[in-house]
Amino acid sequence: MEKEFITPTSGNDVPRFAGISTMLRLPLVPDPVGLDAAFVGVALDCGTSYRSGTRHGPRQIRHESSFVRHFNVATGADPFKSLRVADLGDIPVDPFSVVDAHEDIYKGARHIFQSGCIPMVLGGDHSLTYGMVRAAAEKHGPVGLIQFDAHSDTQDQQFGQRMAHACPMRRVLEDGLVDPRRMVQVGLRGSGYGVDDFDWQRSLGGWVVPAERCWNRSLAPLAVQIVKHMGSGPVYLSFDIDSLDPAHAPGTGTIEPGGLTLAQALELIRGLRGLNIIGFDLVEVSPPLDPFGSTALMAANLMFEMLCILPGVQYRPAHDPMSFRADLPPDWV
Amino acid sequence: MEKEFITPTSGNDVPRFAGISTMLRLPLVPDPVGLDAAFVGVALDCGTSYRSGTRHGPRQIRHESSFVRHFNVATGADPFKSLRVADLGDIPVDPFSVVDAHEDIYKGARHIFQSGCIPMVLGGDHSLTYGMVRAAAEKHGPVGLIQFDAHSDTQDQQFGQRMAHACPMRRVLEDGLVDPRRMVQVGLRGSGYGVDDFDWQRSLGGWVVPAERCWNRSLAPLAVQIVKHMGSGPVYLSFDIDSLDPAHAPGTGTIEPGGLTLAQALELIRGLRGLNIIGFDLVEVSPPLDPFGSTALMAANLMFEMLCILPGVQYRPAHDPMSFRADLPPDWV
Amino acid sequence: MEKEFITPTSGNDVPRFAGISTMLRLPLVPDPVGLDAAFVGVALDCGTSYRSGTRHGPRQIRHESSFVRHFNVATGADPFKSLRVADLGDIPVDPFSVVDAHEDIYKGARHIFQSGCIPMVLGGDHSLTYGMVRAAAEKHGPVGLIQFDAHSDTQDQQFGQRMAHACPMRRVLEDGLVDPRRMVQVGLRGSGYGVDDFDWQRSLGGWVVPAERCWNRSLAPLAVQIVKHMGSGPVYLSFDIDSLDPAHAPGTGTIEPGGLTLAQALELIRGLRGLNIIGFDLVEVSPPLDPFGSTALMAANLMFEMLCILPGVQYRPAHDPMSFRADLPPDWV
Amino acid sequence: MEKEFITPTSGNDVPRFAGISTMLRLPLVPDPVGLDAAFVGVALDCGTSYRSGTRHGPRQIRHESSFVRHFNVATGADPFKSLRVADLGDIPVDPFSVVDAHEDIYKGARHIFQSGCIPMVLGGDHSLTYGMVRAAAEKHGPVGLIQFDAHSDTQDQQFGQRMAHACPMRRVLEDGLVDPRRMVQVGLRGSGYGVDDFDWQRSLGGWVVPAERCWNRSLAPLAVQIVKHMGSGPVYLSFDIDSLDPAHAPGTGTIEPGGLTLAQALELIRGLRGLNIIGFDLVEVSPPLDPFGSTALMAANLMFEMLCILPGVQYRPAHDPMSFRADLPPDWV
Amino acid sequence: MEKEFITPTSGNDVPRFAGISTMLRLPLVPDPVGLDAAFVGVALDCGTSYRSGTRHGPRQIRHESSFVRHFNVATGADPFKSLRVADLGDIPVDPFSVVDAHEDIYKGARHIFQSGCIPMVLGGDHSLTYGMVRAAAEKHGPVGLIQFDAHSDTQDQQFGQRMAHACPMRRVLEDGLVDPRRMVQVGLRGSGYGVDDFDWQRSLGGWVVPAERCWNRSLAPLAVQIVKHMGSGPVYLSFDIDSLDPAHAPGTGTIEPGGLTLAQALELIRGLRGLNIIGFDLVEVSPPLDPFGSTALMAANLMFEMLCILPGVQYRPAHDPMSFRADLPPDWV
Amino acid sequence: MEKEFITPTSGNDVPRFAGISTMLRLPLVPDPVGLDAAFVGVALDCGTSYRSGTRHGPRQIRHESSFVRHFNVATGADPFKSLRVADLGDIPVDPFSVVDAHEDIYKGARHIFQSGCIPMVLGGDHSLTYGMVRAAAEKHGPVGLIQFDAHSDTQDQQFGQRMAHACPMRRVLEDGLVDPRRMVQVGLRGSGYGVDDFDWQRSLGGWVVPAERCWNRSLAPLAVQIVKHMGSGPVYLSFDIDSLDPAHAPGTGTIEPGGLTLAQALELIRGLRGLNIIGFDLVEVSPPLDPFGSTALMAANLMFEMLCILPGVQYRPAHDPMSFRADLPPDWV
Repeated sequence: MEKEFITPTSGNDVPRFAGISTMLRLPLVPDPVGLDAAFVGVALDCGTSYRSGTRHGPRQIRHESSFVRHFNVATGADPFKSLRVADLGDIPVDPFSVVDAHEDIYKGARHIFQSGCIPMVLGGDHSLTYGMVRAAAEKHGPVGLIQFDAHSDTQDQQFGQRMAHACPMRRVLEDGLVDPRRMVQVGLRGSGYGVDDFDWQRSLGGWVVPAERCWNRSLAPLAVQIVKHMGSGPVYLSFDIDSLDPAHAPGTGTIEPGGLTLAQALELIRGLRGLNIIGFDLVEVSPPLDPFGSTALMAANLMFEMLCILPGVQYRPAHDPMSFRADLPPDWV
Repeated sequence: MEKEFITPTSGNDVPRFAGISTMLRLPLVPDPVGLDAAFVGVALDCGTSYRSGTRHGPRQIRHESSFVRHFNVATGADPFKSLRVADLGDIPVDPFSVVDAHEDIYKGARHIFQSGCIPMVLGGDHSLTYGMVRAAAEKHGPVGLIQFDAHSDTQDQQFGQRMAHACPMRRVLEDGLVDPRRMVQVGLRGSGYGVDDFDWQRSLGGWVVPAERCWNRSLAPLAVQIVKHMGSGPVYLSFDIDSLDPAHAPGTGTIEPGGLTLAQALELIRGLRGLNIIGFDLVEVSPPLDPFGSTALMAANLMFEMLCILPGVQYRPAHDPMSFRADLPPDWV
Repeated sequence: MEKEFITPTSGNDVPRFAGISTMLRLPLVPDPVGLDAAFVGVALDCGTSYRSGTRHGPRQIRHESSFVRHFNVATGADPFKSLRVADLGDIPVDPFSVVDAHEDIYKGARHIFQSGCIPMVLGGDHSLTYGMVRAAAEKHGPVGLIQFDAHSDTQDQQFGQRMAHACPMRRVLEDGLVDPRRMVQVGLRGSGYGVDDFDWQRSLGGWVVPAERCWNRSLAPLAVQIVKHMGSGPVYLSFDIDSLDPAHAPGTGTIEPGGLTLAQALELIRGLRGLNIIGFDLVEVSPPLDPFGSTALMAANLMFEMLCILPGVQYRPAHDPMSFRADLPPDWV
Repeated sequence: MEKEFITPTSGNDVPRFAGISTMLRLPLVPDPVGLDAAFVGVALDCGTSYRSGTRHGPRQIRHESSFVRHFNVATGADPFKSLRVADLGDIPVDPFSVVDAHEDIYKGARHIFQSGCIPMVLGGDHSLTYGMVRAAAEKHGPVGLIQFDAHSDTQDQQFGQRMAHACPMRRVLEDGLVDPRRMVQVGLRGSGYGVDDFDWQRSLGGWVVPAERCWNRSLAPLAVQIVKHMGSGPVYLSFDIDSLDPAHAPGTGTIEPGGLTLAQALELIRGLRGLNIIGFDLVEVSPPLDPFGSTALMAANLMFEMLCILPGVQYRPAHDPMSFRADLPPDWV
Repeated sequence: MEKEFITPTSGNDVPRFAGISTMLRLPLVPDPVGLDAAFVGVALDCGTSYRSGTRHGPRQIRHESSFVRHFNVATGADPFKSLRVADLGDIPVDPFSVVDAHEDIYKGARHIFQSGCIPMVLGGDHSLTYGMVRAAAEKHGPVGLIQFDAHSDTQDQQFGQRMAHACPMRRVLEDGLVDPRRMVQVGLRGSGYGVDDFDWQRSLGGWVVPAERCWNRSLAPLAVQIVKHMGSGPVYLSFDIDSLDPAHAPGTGTIEPGGLTLAQALELIRGLRGLNIIGFDLVEVSPPLDPFGSTALMAANLMFEMLCILPGVQYRPAHDPMSFRADLPPDWV
Repeated sequence: MEKEFITPTSGNDVPRFAGISTMLRLPLVPDPVGLDAAFVGVALDCGTSYRSGTRHGPRQIRHESSFVRHFNVATGADPFKSLRVADLGDIPVDPFSVVDAHEDIYKGARHIFQSGCIPMVLGGDHSLTYGMVRAAAEKHGPVGLIQFDAHSDTQDQQFGQRMAHACPMRRVLEDGLVDPRRMVQVGLRGSGYGVDDFDWQRSLGGWVVPAERCWNRSLAPLAVQIVKHMGSGPVYLSFDIDSLDPAHAPGTGTIEPGGLTLAQALELIRGLRGLNIIGFDLVEVSPPLDPFGSTALMAANLMFEMLCILPGVQYRPAHDPMSFRADLPPDWV
C-alpha cells in the first residue's frame, strides 16, 4: 500500500499570514505513531544563565514558519512527498525547575523515539538536548552528535546547577549517551574561562572546529569531512542558533562575535545529507529579543533544511548544491 | 440531553507560553455546526488607507490570547460552562483586492450565521464589518449596530474605493443591512473633512457619542442608555481598537488623541449585557506596530469580555460590576 | 480682494502615506511674507541634559502629520479657510553649540515675526523657546507665556550652561521678554532639587499649576481661568510634550509620572480660544524613543489644535466643545 | 553625634546619563550596617509563568533611576537629609530553581533586617516577596502587607510549583508571616479561574480592592482608609508594577486591562505616609519588554516615592499633596 | 549653452537631520521635462502576499537619504555635476486594488519616459516593476532586465491575482516587454514550489544566478559577464532589497537566508557601469519592519550607486573599484 | 613583590544579569594610580552631526559587558592575570558644548596618562579622540594612530565647528599629536564630498585602506603589514564601531554599506599584538539605536580583545589564531 503523504496548507488556499500557526502549516496531530518525522516544541527557558525568553521560541518559530514553502529549490529535496510529517504540539515542561523539566522532556522524547518517529525539536534553551539525547540513546544506543554552537556547553555546572544550558554536552558524554569519538562541535568561539575550556571533550576524542577555522570561506568541504568522520551510525543534530553570527541571528540570548553566516549554515546542513540522522533540535531562539521574528524565520528555514536531509527524503533531479543551475559559463570567475 | 462543553487548555496542563496558538486555547474545529459561538479570523488589510499590517491581526490576537483565563472574576460570567465555543480558524480572503475579499468574507460569514452559531471575528481591517453584517442581515433582517470607533467610517469612498475601511458604515446603512435608528457610534473624534462629517447617519436616526462626551467619567451610565435604546432586536457589535486612546492601544494604524481608556471600554462592554447580540468583531489591531503584543493582548481580553455578554452566558453569584467585592465601607470616598 | 487660501493635499489625491512630508501636507514656501501663520522646524538637541534625539523631531512630526485632516470636527474650526498657512522648512541651527544655535534661532524667528506671520515651531529641545520669545518680544514687547510642561525650566544653569533646556524660562524672565504676571505653567511635577524649586517665578507673579491639581478631572475650567488671567495682550504658547503623562507621550527624553492625558491637553488647548496668540512651539519629541511615530503623531495633532485657536480662525456653526453633538439626552449620566 | 548623610551624585557633577548605574546614584556599599534604609536587587525570573525577563529588572531600574532627583517637590519629603541610604547591590540568587532562589533571598534579607536597615527591593519576579517577608517576620513578628497588584498571587501552586510567582501571598499567609487582618490588596482584576478566586484571603480577614473600585476617581481617600486600617504595627509594601494599567507600565510580563494610573499610584503611595513601613519591594519590571526603559524609570520614581514615606523622613514645609502650591483660587473648578 | 546642474542641499547649510525630506536632498519639482534623471516614489503594498508595509517605503527612503553625500568616493562618479537630477514626488496610486494601481503606475511612468528622463523608482512592492517596464518598452521597445532578488517573481498568479508581487516578471515576459535573452536574475534562493520553479524563464533564454553561486566570493567577475551579455541595448534594473541577506536588509517582508552582502551588491552595481540603463527601481523596503531606518538608508545608498552608473555620469580620475587608493604594497595579501 | 591582580566578579558568584554594571564586572576605583590599564567612559554626543545618542554609550557598554568572560580562548590571552585593570567610571564632560567638553576630556585623560596607566575609553562620539590623543602626546610625544572607521574624520569643520566628530583626525595631525607616517585608517567608505577626500592625510604619509580592499577576504595579512609599518613607537588605537558593516553593528548613528565583518575586526585586532599600545578608544555606539544592546555587547567584546593585546598581557600556550585547535586534518579544505 502506498504511503499517504501530508501536504502543508498552500499559500493559495489560505494566505501565508492567515490561519493557525502550526509548524510549516502542517496539521496538528496528537500522536507520533504512523509519522516518519514530527515537529515538537519544548518551551523551556529555566536553563538559561543570561538573557531568558527561549520559552517563547516554539510559538514564534511556528508563527514565522508559515512563510516557508514545501520544496527545496536549491537541493531538489521534496520532503513532504517522501516522508509523513506533522506537528505534535509542545511537550509540556515544568517552567520553574530545570531538573523537573528534564524529566518531562525525556518522557515526551521517549514516546516519540519509541514510536519510530524522528523528532524535530523547536527549542527552548539548549539544556533540552540532554533530555532528547537520553531518550535517543535508549532507543539507538550511544549516538553521534553534531553540535552547531558558539559555546561548548560542557561546563560541569553553572551556579551549582548541572542541568543548566551551559552543561548538556558534559552530561550526555558523562552518561555515555553520546560516543565522544563521533562528536563534532562547529562554531565555538567567544571569551571563556581558561585555556583548557575545550580540552575535556577533545581528550575523549571529540572534534572541535572553532569559528576562527570557518571565517571567510566555504564550509562545504568541512561537511564532507564530517560526513566521512561520522560514518553510518545514528546521528543527532543540535543546532544552537547562536552558532550564527549576531548579524545573522540577533534574536538570541548569548551572542558572540565572529560566528557562521547563514550561507555557511546552509552549506553545512546540506552537506550532511546521507547521514543516519535520528533526531535534531534547533535551540535558543529568544522572541523577546526578536521583535520582528527575523531570527525565528531563519530558524524555521534551517529546520526545513534539516528535515530535507533526513533519511528517506527523495531528491528530484540530483543537484550538486554548489554548481546548481549554472547558467553562467563555468569560467565566470 | 446535557450540552457537552469545551474547556480551554489549562495553564497547569500546558504552560501558557507553550502549545499551538488558537483563540483562548480552544480547540480548532472545521465547522460551526453544533457550536453556540465561534471565533473566526479575517486576515485583511487591503482596505486600509494609512498604515497597513492588520492582516497579521488574527494570528497575533490568538498568540496573545493564551494568557486569558476562562472565568470573568469581575462580573461572574462563566462562558465556557454556558456555551459551546471553539475556534474555526480564518476565513481565507483575497489579499489583493478589497472587493473580492468582501465576497469571501460574506460567504464565510453566511455559513456561520446560517448554522446558528454566533461569529466572533478577529480582524483584520474595519472594512470586514460590511461582509459580516451583510450575512447577519440575511439571517436576522436589519440589525442594530453598536460601533466603538475613533472614526465614523461613513465616507462614501476613499481614493474611489467604496469598500475601503473608511466606508463600511455607509454601505451597511445604504444597503439596508442596519437599522439606522438602532445604530450607536461611541468614541468618534479626531480631525476630519467638514462640519457635517457625522450628519448623514444622524439624519437617519443614528446616535453619535463623540469621545469628548466620554472624557473624565465613568461610562457605565452610557451603557445603560444604549441598552435601553437598542431594545430586544438583534445587535451586532463592532469594536475598532482605535476607539481606545493611543495610550491604551498604540498598535493600530490610525490613532487619534483623546479616546477611551481600557477601564471605560470594560465598563461599556460589561454594561451591554442583556442585549440580543448575534455577532461581533474586533478590528484594526496591527501587529507590525505592536512588537510586544500588548495591543493584541488587550484585544483578546476585550473579545473575552464580549463573549461574556452573549445571550445564554450564565453568571455565578450576580455581581454589580461597580460595587463588586466591596470590602471597604460604602463611604470610603 | 479676497484672500487666496492654501489647501493641504487631500488624501484622495495622494494617499496619506505617500508624497513628500511637509507639515500637514502644506506646500513648502521659502518666505513667510504673505502668510498668516507658518510652520517652521528647529532641529535642536544640544540643549538636552538627559536623553537626546530631539534634533529629529521636526522631520518625524512632519512625517506623521500627513494623517491629520484639515477640519476640526470637535470644535468647528476651519483653519485653512481662515488663514494662509504654509511650511517654511527648518531654521538651520548649529548642532554643536547651544549658544550659537540660539543666535540662529533668534535670527530665523525675527524674520518671521517681523513679516507679520505667526510662527508655529516644530522642536527640537525646549531651550529653543528662548530664541523664539526673544524675537517675539522684539516685535510685540514683553509677552504672556503659557507653558505646558513637566518641568519648570527655570534653573539658573545646568553643568554651567545657562542656555540648557532646563533654563529657558529663567532666561526669558530675567531678560524681561515675558511679563511674569502673565506667565502660567501647567503640569509641573516630578522629583526636584528643593522645596523652593518653583518659588522664584511665583514670587514674580507667575502661576504654577502642578500636575497634582490636574489629576482625575476635566481641565476645561482651568482653561477658563487662564483665559481670564491672560487678558488681551500677546501670548506665546510653549507645549513641552512631556507635560503629557508617559502613557500618552512615551517618545520624549525626560518623562515624569502623573502628567496630563491627551484628553486634558485637548481640553486646555481648545479652551484657550480667544487669546491673542502670537506664536507657539511644540518641543521635546524624540524620535529615537518613538519608533512607530505615535508620539510625533500626537504632537502633530496638538499643533493642529493650536493652529485652530489662532486669532482669525473661523468656526463653523459654533460648538461648545463639551456638549458638542449631544445625541444623548442631557440626563444620561 | 549628628548623622552623616549620603548624597546622591548631582547631575551638575556628573551628567545624568553618565557614570556607574547605582540606584538613585547612591554609593554602592557592601554592608547594611549603619544604614537606615538600603536598596537591594533580587534578579529573579525563575518564578514567572508567562513572559520572563524580570531577572534584568534590577539592572534596568538602576540604570534609569539616574534621572530621579533627590527632593520630592510635591510632598516636601527630603529623604537623603533624613535617612542614611545606599545601594547594597544584588543578593545573588540561583537562576535555575525557584526553590533554591528563595533560600538565597531569605538569607540575604535576614542579614539586612537583622542589621536594623530597611530593605527596598528591586525585583525580580513577585515570588521574591515570600523570602523577604519570611525574614521580615523573623525580625518583626507577623507583619501587615499592602499589595499593589493586578493578581492576587494566592494560588496554591502553578504547574505543581508552590513557590511560583502566582503563589507568594498564599505562602506568607499559610506560614503565619502576615497577619491577614492587616492585609490589603489593591488593583486586582483580569480573567481568572473561578468565582472564589479572592475568597480565601477575604475569609481570613484580608481586604480586596478590585481595580473596578478604583476607576475614574482619586484614590487619596482610599489611602486614608488603609492607613486607618493598618494601625501602628509593622507594614511591608509590595508593589507589582502590573497593578498599573498597561498604558502606564507596558514593560511587564502579565498585563491586564483596567489598572491604576500613575497618578493614582502616586496618590496611594503618598497617602500611606505615617505607616510603620519596615520594608518594600517593587517587582515584575521586565526589561526585554521595555526597550526604552520607560517602565523601569516609572518604577524608579515609585521606589523614590516609597522611600519618601519611610518612618523618619522629614518633610519641609508640610504640604497637603492635593492642594499643594495652589496658585489658582480654590473655586477654579 | 551649458547645462545648469542641481546641487543637493549641503550638510553645512542645513544639518543632515533637518529640513524637508526629499530624495538625496534634491529639490522637489513638478515635472520631469528638462531633467536627465528623476527620483519618483510608488507607495504601493497591495501586491504583497506576506508581510505588508512597503507603501511607506518611499517616505522612509527619502527620510534616510539625507545622510548620503553627493560624490562617490570609491568610484569617482560625480553624478550631480553630470546630470540634472531632481525628485518628482510620488506617483499617486490606488491603495486598494493592485490592478488599478498598475494603471496609475503605467501612466505616471509613461509621462517620465516620454519626457526623455530616466526614472529612478522608490518602491513600493515589486509588482510595480510591471507598470514601469510597460512604459519603458513603449518608449524603448523590449528592454533588457537585470533583477536582483531572492525570488524569481515569475509565478503565474497568487491567490488568483496575476498582478501580485510574485508575478511581475512573468507578466513582462509574457507581454513581450522584456527580451528574455537579455534577462538576468541574481540572488534567487529559498524554499519554493517545485523543481521547475526557474525553468520557464530559462527555457526562454533567461539567465538565473542562484544565491548559492554567489556565496563566499567577490561578484565583480559576475558583473563583467553580465555587462558582456547585455550588450548595448536598453536595460532596466530592478533591485529587490530582499536580494540582500536578512543580516544586511532585515526591514523587508519576505526574507530568505543566504542572500547577498552589501559589499557584493556594491560590487555588482558598480560593475554594471557602461550599460545603457534607461530606468531602475528599488523595491520592497518595509518601514514598519525597519524601526531605525537602517534598511531604508542602505536602500538610499544603493539608489545613489545606481544613479552613479547611469549613462552620462562623469568619473573623476578613473578608478578601478577594487584596487582603489591602494596605499599598501600590492603583495599585502 | 608580586603584583596583586584584580579578578572580575564570576558568573558563579553573581549571575551575569545581576549586580552593578561596571566594565567587565571589574571593581570601580577612584584613581588610576597603581593600575596598568583602566576603563574609563566619555559620555559625549555633542560632537555628532547626524543621529545622536552616543552619550549613553558608556553605560550601555558596561551593562552588556557583564556577559564577557575573563579569558581569551581563541588567542590564549590572560589579561587579568597579567595586568592590574579596573573601571574608573566616567570623566564628567560638558554635555552642551563640544569645545568645553574637549577640555574636560583632555584633563581627565592627562591624569590617567601621567599616572602611567593605559586608558581604555568607552565612547561617546568620535570627537573624543582629539582630547585623548592630546594627552597621550603630552606623555609620549607624537603617537602612531590606527583608526578603524567608515569615515576619515579629517574634515576641517562641520557647520563651522572644528571639534565636530568629523574632524578629530585633522586636528590631531594639524597639532602634531600624531605622526602622519604612522597613521593607518582602515575601513573608509561611503559617499563623500569630492575626489580628494582622503588626499590630505595621504599627502602627509598616512595609509588609507578603503573598505573595498577588505571585502571577501581574511584581514590577518593586513594586520601583519600594519604591525611592520608601525614599528616600536607608541600607538593609539581608535575603533569607530561604524567601521563594521551595518549588519554587524546597526546601533550607531552614521552607518555606511560595505564595512568590516566582526570576524575581520577580530582578525585585525588580534593581529596587532606586539605593538606598543598606549591607549585606545571604542566610539560611536548609540544605545537609542540599539534597543537590545547587541551592538554594545559587540563593542564590549572588541574592547576585551583590545585589552588582550596590550603590552604585558601574557598568553597561555602560544596559539596561532588561525590554526588554533585544529582537530581536522590540515587538508580539510
